[in-house]
Amino acid sequence: MGLIMVTGGASSGKSEFAEKMALEYGGGSVLYIATSIPIDDEMKERIRRHRERRSEKWGIIEAFKGLKNIIISSEKKVILLDCLTVMITNFIMEKDLTGDNLLVDEINDLEGKISDEVDGIIEGALKRVGDTIIVTNEIGMGLVPEYKLGRIFRDIAGRMNMKIAEAAEVVYLTVSGIPIKIKGC
Amino acid sequence: MGLIMVTGGASSGKSEFAEKMALEYGGGSVLYIATSIPIDDEMKERIRRHRERRSEKWGIIEAFKGLKNIIISSEKKVILLDCLTVMITNFIMEKDLTGDNLLVDEINDLEGKISDEVDGIIEGALKRVGDTIIVTNEIGMGLVPEYKLGRIFRDIAGRMNMKIAEAAEVVYLTVSGIPIKIKGC
Amino acid sequence: MGLIMVTGGASSGKSEFAEKMALEYGGGSVLYIATSIPIDDEMKERIRRHRERRSEKWGIIEAFKGLKNIIISSEKKVILLDCLTVMITNFIMEKDLTGDNLLVDEINDLEGKISDEVDGIIEGALKRVGDTIIVTNEIGMGLVPEYKLGRIFRDIAGRMNMKIAEAAEVVYLTVSGIPIKIKGC
Repeated sequence: MGLIMVTGGASSGKSEFAEKMALEYGGGSVLYIATSIPIDDEMKERIRRHRERRSEKWGIIEAFKGLKNIIISSEKKVILLDCLTVMITNFIMEKDLTGDNLLVDEINDLEGKISDEVDGIIEGALKRVGDTIIVTNEIGMGLVPEYKLGRIFRDIAGRMNMKIAEAAEVVYLTVSGIPIKIKGC
Repeated sequence: MGLIMVTGGASSGKSEFAEKMALEYGGGSVLYIATSIPIDDEMKERIRRHRERRSEKWGIIEAFKGLKNIIISSEKKVILLDCLTVMITNFIMEKDLTGDNLLVDEINDLEGKISDEVDGIIEGALKRVGDTIIVTNEIGMGLVPEYKLGRIFRDIAGRMNMKIAEAAEVVYLTVSGIPIKIKGC
Repeated sequence: MGLIMVTGGASSGKSEFAEKMALEYGGGSVLYIATSIPIDDEMKERIRRHRERRSEKWGIIEAFKGLKNIIISSEKKVILLDCLTVMITNFIMEKDLTGDNLLVDEINDLEGKISDEVDGIIEGALKRVGDTIIVTNEIGMGLVPEYKLGRIFRDIAGRMNMKIAEAAEVVYLTVSGIPIKIKGC
């Protein structure tokens, strides 16, 4: 049924807000899809902070691919996907791209794969009975990155955000912990 | 007559939104002022994506200086300038500044020149009968740049955005493809 | 009495807006707390621009620590603190951290100290009879910084912004010089 998007800057309260919503709508019946893979201490600390806030009853899946099937087949009231930007990062890291010598065709091919995954997420979310909350990041309001891969990532992430926002019923932008409804009523 | 500003992060849908507005208000009678100069493959790809979306009937001028006269003398219903931030970049690149050894006077001199150009754009837009849509970027919501030229650029771009916004009748901020009206009614 | 927060990107008009509010509410009875320390020409130029805009009657204190007592003991109608982000930067610079070899415990310890200072500011502001205006920065909407200290700083700054925003009666986000009220009525 409902697709809800929560976007915002780093440490702007987007995950906290999305988790509160998930708890309110789903109670203990929530599937949390974590797209990040803990590879170092910093990441583990980040994930620990996230984990502390979540209900123990929630189901958890760590994945960043094939999410359409996971979303469709879940019988939880609410699905909370946190977050889209890390999912995109994983797609890019998987290809082990260095950036500087990337050809236009390779970039478009990579974006095509990510775009297919995002289309699947949207399709899955719209087919479900329960709500699907997708957390993502605003990353395009700084200076132009000096390195090519940064610019490519920024553009792809921005375009994927637009796709989700277009399909979503409600979109929130969090600023300093304040959720601002920018789409829906 | 009307000056409309569209600002937003990278790949946040600001150009798409501005182009839709231009088409709606001007139909085929639009002058598109492109401030960016294609110097490499990446830029060409970026410009190609832009071009694909535009009407073939629109007039196109590639320029980032002397825009006041271009704006005043055009008889098109709508002028769409995309974008202010690249215009500022070109002013900076033209002076071939390295940044680190820049003196305060040189910086203020550079900002003075850019400021004069922006004043001219505003004056031209307010004198015209038709609408003028100016696209620009939010670039100040990341960390402080490590290099001096980045900080200077960020400050100048921010101050020019403020000038345009103050003169504009309507200002939109696009976030994930959603235009949020932040000034005007 | 009233705690008012003004956040925004670099050169987005947040200081100008906060100063106008301070003048309107406090007239000449304003205490300006400057958290930045002029260490080079660039900083001096920045401070000079700020200074030009302020009333000569205002009291000025340069400090980034022990602000609770300064806030409580001031008899001025309005206190204007500009800005929180530089205050946090000073805490980090004082410890002379290099970032890469920082342990999780050291980081949490640093955040604890900053958090105590922020709690003191909030407590002071809520105890006062007059208004307290706090200026801060949105720094989390760019790409993930490549260096660890940048990521740590960004997270701490974001969390401190959330604390202030939660305690504040009114919160403004400035974009291109336009203040958008995102909390309060």
